[in-house]
Amino acid sequence: MTDWGAPPQPVEVPDPVPGPGEVLVRVAGCGLCRSDLTMRHLPAAVGQQLGWSMPFTLGHETAGWIDGTGEPVALVSPTSCGTCRHCVRGQDSGCPYGRAGRGYGRDGGLAPYVLVSDRRALLPLGDLDPRHAGPLTDAGATAYHAVRRALPRIGVGGTVVVIGAGGLGAFAIQFVRVLTAARVVAVDPLPARLSYAAELGAHSCSATVPRDADVVLDFVGTDETIAAGIAAVRTGGAYGLIGSAGGKLRKPWFATLPRDGEVFTFQGSSIADAQEVIALAGAGLIRNQVEEFGFGEIDQAYTRLAAGSLTGRAVIVL
Amino acid sequence: MTDWGAPPQPVEVPDPVPGPGEVLVRVAGCGLCRSDLTMRHLPAAVGQQLGWSMPFTLGHETAGWIDGTGEPVALVSPTSCGTCRHCVRGQDSGCPYGRAGRGYGRDGGLAPYVLVSDRRALLPLGDLDPRHAGPLTDAGATAYHAVRRALPRIGVGGTVVVIGAGGLGAFAIQFVRVLTAARVVAVDPLPARLSYAAELGAHSCSATVPRDADVVLDFVGTDETIAAGIAAVRTGGAYGLIGSAGGKLRKPWFATLPRDGEVFTFQGSSIADAQEVIALAGAGLIRNQVEEFGFGEIDQAYTRLAAGSLTGRAVIVL
Amino acid sequence: MTDWGAPPQPVEVPDPVPGPGEVLVRVAGCGLCRSDLTMRHLPAAVGQQLGWSMPFTLGHETAGWIDGTGEPVALVSPTSCGTCRHCVRGQDSGCPYGRAGRGYGRDGGLAPYVLVSDRRALLPLGDLDPRHAGPLTDAGATAYHAVRRALPRIGVGGTVVVIGAGGLGAFAIQFVRVLTAARVVAVDPLPARLSYAAELGAHSCSATVPRDADVVLDFVGTDETIAAGIAAVRTGGAYGLIGSAGGKLRKPWFATLPRDGEVFTFQGSSIADAQEVIALAGAGLIRNQVEEFGFGEIDQAYTRLAAGSLTGRAVIVL
Amino acid sequence: MTDWGAPPQPVEVPDPVPGPGEVLVRVAGCGLCRSDLTMRHLPAAVGQQLGWSMPFTLGHETAGWIDGTGEPVALVSPTSCGTCRHCVRGQDSGCPYGRAGRGYGRDGGLAPYVLVSDRRALLPLGDLDPRHAGPLTDAGATAYHAVRRALPRIGVGGTVVVIGAGGLGAFAIQFVRVLTAARVVAVDPLPARLSYAAELGAHSCSATVPRDADVVLDFVGTDETIAAGIAAVRTGGAYGLIGSAGGKLRKPWFATLPRDGEVFTFQGSSIADAQEVIALAGAGLIRNQVEEFGFGEIDQAYTRLAAGSLTGRAVIVL
Repeated sequence: MTDWGAPPQPVEVPDPVPGPGEVLVRVAGCGLCRSDLTMRHLPAAVGQQLGWSMPFTLGHETAGWIDGTGEPVALVSPTSCGTCRHCVRGQDSGCPYGRAGRGYGRDGGLAPYVLVSDRRALLPLGDLDPRHAGPLTDAGATAYHAVRRALPRIGVGGTVVVIGAGGLGAFAIQFVRVLTAARVVAVDPLPARLSYAAELGAHSCSATVPRDADVVLDFVGTDETIAAGIAAVRTGGAYGLIGSAGGKLRKPWFATLPRDGEVFTFQGSSIADAQEVIALAGAGLIRNQVEEFGFGEIDQAYTRLAAGSLTGRAVIVL
Repeated sequence: MTDWGAPPQPVEVPDPVPGPGEVLVRVAGCGLCRSDLTMRHLPAAVGQQLGWSMPFTLGHETAGWIDGTGEPVALVSPTSCGTCRHCVRGQDSGCPYGRAGRGYGRDGGLAPYVLVSDRRALLPLGDLDPRHAGPLTDAGATAYHAVRRALPRIGVGGTVVVIGAGGLGAFAIQFVRVLTAARVVAVDPLPARLSYAAELGAHSCSATVPRDADVVLDFVGTDETIAAGIAAVRTGGAYGLIGSAGGKLRKPWFATLPRDGEVFTFQGSSIADAQEVIALAGAGLIRNQVEEFGFGEIDQAYTRLAAGSLTGRAVIVL
Repeated sequence: MTDWGAPPQPVEVPDPVPGPGEVLVRVAGCGLCRSDLTMRHLPAAVGQQLGWSMPFTLGHETAGWIDGTGEPVALVSPTSCGTCRHCVRGQDSGCPYGRAGRGYGRDGGLAPYVLVSDRRALLPLGDLDPRHAGPLTDAGATAYHAVRRALPRIGVGGTVVVIGAGGLGAFAIQFVRVLTAARVVAVDPLPARLSYAAELGAHSCSATVPRDADVVLDFVGTDETIAAGIAAVRTGGAYGLIGSAGGKLRKPWFATLPRDGEVFTFQGSSIADAQEVIALAGAGLIRNQVEEFGFGEIDQAYTRLAAGSLTGRAVIVL
Repeated sequence: MTDWGAPPQPVEVPDPVPGPGEVLVRVAGCGLCRSDLTMRHLPAAVGQQLGWSMPFTLGHETAGWIDGTGEPVALVSPTSCGTCRHCVRGQDSGCPYGRAGRGYGRDGGLAPYVLVSDRRALLPLGDLDPRHAGPLTDAGATAYHAVRRALPRIGVGGTVVVIGAGGLGAFAIQFVRVLTAARVVAVDPLPARLSYAAELGAHSCSATVPRDADVVLDFVGTDETIAAGIAAVRTGGAYGLIGSAGGKLRKPWFATLPRDGEVFTFQGSSIADAQEVIALAGAGLIRNQVEEFGFGEIDQAYTRLAAGSLTGRAVIVL
């Protein structure tokens, strides 16, 4: 990103030089995310208020090798202080003291090297391929955070509805299958996504939201999905909003929200979430579907992402 | 209640005769509740759909003595089946198979005797006075359910905001004081209620909702209190809606609901909630403020209730 | 059981006649349990102190059809009051007011009919075969209770060790596989049981207890398994003792018990446990392995049980 | 400590010089702990295996002012890596990668200055007096960890038994009073300690352990207290062992451990525990009783500590 409100450009950047306590990581691959596209339209005033610097390198789903040792690692992109009441309780995604994240407001992974100054951001990959592992830390970990939040409300014999079977939803379906004995219903208007969801383990697929669900995870977030999702939750269940489409609920809350249930929303994920997603992938329990592109094919990859024609996540292999 | 849409009448009713397995309770006192007033306007069609029978005796905050033994007991008013997945997990307030409750749709406590057919509905009172104990089972237990739901999100050094310092709010303030190390802020437009709240242990009182609360419990539930309450919750906190004023949130959910927090609503309380409130009162840890009226003063008591001029709960002593 | 300290006899018993509120169940099948064998040696004094009556019909893993409707049900065997602080919180297995259980101290399922006086004891079976479902309510539910207790301590990528791959252990292995993403290690001295454990999903099998486990569930309970099990638990993990072999730990507790971990033991299971096991079996997620015997083959079945030569549970089909 | 197996000596040490990222803290006061006394007898081989260096300065209950800013802080003494699975989940007291702690194996707070290399170890004190705050981080936080672990098992109207009303027990009594509605029974053979316990809020005091407790916290840990403590726990309760006296339980576990209860032990406390203890003290909700000694009175203070004749904690004021 070379300027506010402008599309990204491929430019030459100098290789970063690690200072004391810093670690240099050679990038193997970096995933592309829908939020990369929205950053092009971020007004300078908003970005500066968030503490973002311009220019910066995009890419917040990064993995590679530690320079020198060659150890494969994925990187945590959000910044957190490590010392506040949130961080020392393992709730670092709620840290109010984080600066701009890696790839949003400071240099990210679409470059040959990235610098890591906080060792908490290094996630050992074991046998996983660092060219493909980046999406586990963002698309994967965000979906995992949602499932983890909802787990106590998912009963044996219950139903979990996943609205939106795209990048995050595809992970969520798998996490629910691996961690619970619930039935999973995938809801999406696109038939191709529904058959992909079935392949990943969804027990049934639908264009409409069924009733009496233990949990609804809404990866879309329009007025329509919020209304249908809320109506679907059983007494004592949960509705989790992950999709940022900006929807509202137009009904009175008292008789409409799930009785004795839970409504939650959030942004991002904790370091522990990312660790656990990597453990699940390392154990072969989830599939991390990616489509590889070369650095010269970035524009094409973003076009495919914008068009919704990818199955799984696009990664740029460096 | 002698007919749909009509005000209640004092009428002679025959003393009920216990069948096999049933217990007769001589009523000592019965609390009045704002919902008694709304029942006067319930359309026949709605009432019948809820399984209500007409005529029935009002009163769902009942306590008295078991006929024969004289043991003092308070009564659980909601009905629950005792065998469904909710009931056998202690979540009987979510039971979908309950018939109409004692005092709403079938005979309640504003009469010399009530019949109890489910022994789970008998709550031993120990040394507590059954003339005053009725409100513990409804106003008390509902407020307790809200506090219990919110407890895991109330940190040491945190703040709990109670919006609406009336019958339920007054109990909630006390429960938070007894069960947590949080600061309690009471919010109410009426100065008299705020000074009562301070007497009950609120650390500070305010006409406006403060920021950065661990938990907001909203016993009002208008558009205004929902908007202010939601805005007040810190990352990871909770907003609980207990007030049934019918408010909505007119903003997009994604960036407005408390980040990684919890929004909940419910109706009623479980048997365990009522047991625990009675235990707290029995241990002298909470004050159950009541104003006594005779059976002939019911109209006056309801007028005072409707006018909001009671401190604590009105009980009819029988 | 016709007398204290004597082996059971096949005798003619009159069909029971249901009183008001009671339900008659025609027995389809009843599982045999190792505790049936120990009852033969129970001294009269102990039995009477437990509230047991003699004679009584054995059998506490019962399922059949509700007389009249033909609805298939399994039966909860332990008795609980339904109203105490334990029962109304869903912790009925801790109820101190239960009388003798169905099949231990009062009439059980090794007879054509049983009477049920508490509707909480009727567990609808849906499509499951009542001839085989009995063991789900005891062997299954007890193992489930252990796994449910341990669930919060089982991490992604963690290990659960099941010591003793017999009737209960075989269920436990399956529950851990269905409800978690942990690796399961089965420990048993008998090679036949280990290969059965592998068939049921254990990732590895061993004659010795491995180290650094999230959770150890000990279905044996000798000095040796307790010592090895405790030593195997990682910081923050859990050791659950289900086996009643009477072992002790001969070491100081402070430096020996798992650091910041949990040690627990229990007896029996709750109604909710049994409901969930039936739901898992009904969804086809666990295998309920049984060996069928006719009523005339009871002695042979008990002999096989005592010899440890059964795979799965023996059920007497009536 | 100048040598293994030798008593400590007052010696001149050079003021430490902070390197990059390190913080220098001027010590205001440092608490003495019974474990200081046991270190005198630690064999060299054991100490070296724990990663301890000799010589080192004693003192692991340290507070003071950040050099330069003058901000009052207390210090976390145990070391933890900040990045492992335990640390990023807020369970840093279980971190296996910590080096020797401040004051046990490396330089502690009985000196004019200490160096802090991990910012997580700095706990802002607000208005609390740093001369006295040190014990909050060790005696206080360890007792808090125990109470926090036991909280879910402490019911309204329940009883918590605190065995040993010394330094840690005195804190535990107060935490239970502030955070629960339970009755607290203090058990100690010394009448002076029992009257101190009553002053701090214990509802009753006893030389013997009562029955049917929700929770027993054992700050002694001999064979006798373990046996009596375990026997005292109700079904579903908890027994927590904090005292390191090396006791065993000489009975079979199956029928002896609390039914469906929890037995736990641990060492140390997390950073979050210390933060919360400081918040409780800062809010005036607990009393941190200390007896002040000058640096020249250390021997006398240790003698009083060894003799058990202190009320509260000894702090050396620097």
